[in-house]
Amino acid sequence: MELQNDLLIRAARGEATERTPVWLMRQAGRILPEYRAVRNKLSGFIELATTPELAAEVTLQPVDILGVDAAIIFSDILVIPEAMGLPYEMVEKKGPYFPNTIQTEDDLAKIRVADVASDLAYVTEAIKIVKKELNGRVPLIGFAGAPWTIMAYMIEGGGSKTFSKARRMLYNNPVLSDKLLQMITESTIQYLKAQIAAGANIVQIFDSWAGILSPDHYKAYSLKYISQICDAIDEVPVTVFAKGAFFARQEMRHLNCETIGLDWNMDIQNSRRLIGEQKTLQGNLDPCALYGSPLEIENNTKKMLQAFGNTRHIANLGHGVYPDTDPEKVKVFINTVKEYSAYMRSKEV
Amino acid sequence: MELQNDLLIRAARGEATERTPVWLMRQAGRILPEYRAVRNKLSGFIELATTPELAAEVTLQPVDILGVDAAIIFSDILVIPEAMGLPYEMVEKKGPYFPNTIQTEDDLAKIRVADVASDLAYVTEAIKIVKKELNGRVPLIGFAGAPWTIMAYMIEGGGSKTFSKARRMLYNNPVLSDKLLQMITESTIQYLKAQIAAGANIVQIFDSWAGILSPDHYKAYSLKYISQICDAIDEVPVTVFAKGAFFARQEMRHLNCETIGLDWNMDIQNSRRLIGEQKTLQGNLDPCALYGSPLEIENNTKKMLQAFGNTRHIANLGHGVYPDTDPEKVKVFINTVKEYSAYMRSKEV
Repeated sequence: MELQNDLLIRAARGEATERTPVWLMRQAGRILPEYRAVRNKLSGFIELATTPELAAEVTLQPVDILGVDAAIIFSDILVIPEAMGLPYEMVEKKGPYFPNTIQTEDDLAKIRVADVASDLAYVTEAIKIVKKELNGRVPLIGFAGAPWTIMAYMIEGGGSKTFSKARRMLYNNPVLSDKLLQMITESTIQYLKAQIAAGANIVQIFDSWAGILSPDHYKAYSLKYISQICDAIDEVPVTVFAKGAFFARQEMRHLNCETIGLDWNMDIQNSRRLIGEQKTLQGNLDPCALYGSPLEIENNTKKMLQAFGNTRHIANLGHGVYPDTDPEKVKVFINTVKEYSAYMRSKEV
Repeated sequence: MELQNDLLIRAARGEATERTPVWLMRQAGRILPEYRAVRNKLSGFIELATTPELAAEVTLQPVDILGVDAAIIFSDILVIPEAMGLPYEMVEKKGPYFPNTIQTEDDLAKIRVADVASDLAYVTEAIKIVKKELNGRVPLIGFAGAPWTIMAYMIEGGGSKTFSKARRMLYNNPVLSDKLLQMITESTIQYLKAQIAAGANIVQIFDSWAGILSPDHYKAYSLKYISQICDAIDEVPVTVFAKGAFFARQEMRHLNCETIGLDWNMDIQNSRRLIGEQKTLQGNLDPCALYGSPLEIENNTKKMLQAFGNTRHIANLGHGVYPDTDPEKVKVFINTVKEYSAYMRSKEV
């Protein structure tokens, strides 16, 4: 199936595009009343993520309602630990909770590299439905968590301000840490390949807890494994979004990936200088900017577009859209990207 | 009273010292069994912070037990909103909670610039007791929150992963934001001056939520007010610790302060290059490094000392010490700083 709108893929590959593509992290989610209508009929988040027809339905909503240039499969990065043998619950207003965690070699012996075909069939099934419904309108983004971020949850057992138990493991048991990271990496490579086989046109790796590691640990325990994943995926373009890893931008230029995501607090010019000209950058409007007036949103979006320039940019926020954002404000952002980025190109000498 | 150990003050001022001074953020706290013994007899954190004799007692504990080169007054940054008319509770295991918050001009009209002499006498009283007990052994550090961080709590009403309500205010009501920030700034200047008058030998400004602002907002809504405070305090050296504000390091060189604190994820050489030679740097060992073996702590501490060099460095962690850290491990860190930094100076050509 040829894509009718392949702006995202071309921008990722560094090809010229007639305008800047735009999508939003967490676009399929609580900002849309249509999402909440589906969600409220169910027992919880996990039921939604594991029911392919419903996951597909909410994946498609922002394409129809907001007019984004890509769909991103509705799922969760924690399906990987679950498939490895560490189930989790999603506690309303609190976040994920793992009844069992990894602390010792014995704990490690109880888990396995995920058997993606059997354990994560609900995700690939959802992808197939989405692809059919999209019918080539826009690309579909697959995703997974980065191994360090997944490990952090598997050791900590849930969210944390400091993830000090997980970081303690890196100091106290580097051997166990590396074994666990390698198992997660192998599971993730299989998982992303299955998403691609099912139809994902591009994949993104989310390293949500990148920013809490020291630069040395980040290199040794996160970049090393992200790098393995990037090297293993050659079917489609790869995006790496390492939240808070400002200190690793220079090293990320060496990753075998097409696109690097930027936080909203990363200066665009500095990031371009550190990361170099060979990557597409994705981001990075402050999600809170969408609380401003339409005029302010337009102005902030234009300023961002100017700073990124006409090539190698995929417009997005610098973080997931906040749940209480007015969808009409999101549309102002999206429409400004579409119109102003086309205008910017028309003014090029 | 002349200080017998004035290493911290001399290092802050950029004078040569026979070794690197060392202290730890949150050194007076849950890591010490002696602290927990005092704390467990009381109704809660706030009773401890507002009872001068007890606050003084726990302030002195790490000087006696750990051998740090400074005491830091046991208190909380949120005493300022309380003194401005916005009381808070400290909820066990959850953190601060403000029953009333600032959302409108009407809310702002109900609060005031703090009357430090009456409302915060318990802090200055505690400082006087500490100074008497210290009897010049080591300097005493006073502190306050940065205006942006205080404003974030006053609007959000408690802790938050994103502080999106507070950040929303910056986009939606810059006028109200500036008024509130100015009131906090004036309260803070008075408060720090009162701490200095009571005996604080150096003061530190904690901008705990610096890292969640975009660079433009950080400049306009945080650095601007920190700068006012730095300009107003000329009695003693000033330290600014803006957690997560990696993007503002170059601008912080222009602050009228002596010392800049570094997070553990800020590369030391890069930070020195961005901040320049005219500031002392404080930090920045990963608090989790103290979970390692004594030998690993020694090695990581030595590596840090070498990276900072022999001048303009105050050794510390890159964040507050984590509550479950073994005090014996803290001593390894402190003793390594003392011994190895003296050795480094002896090897200087």
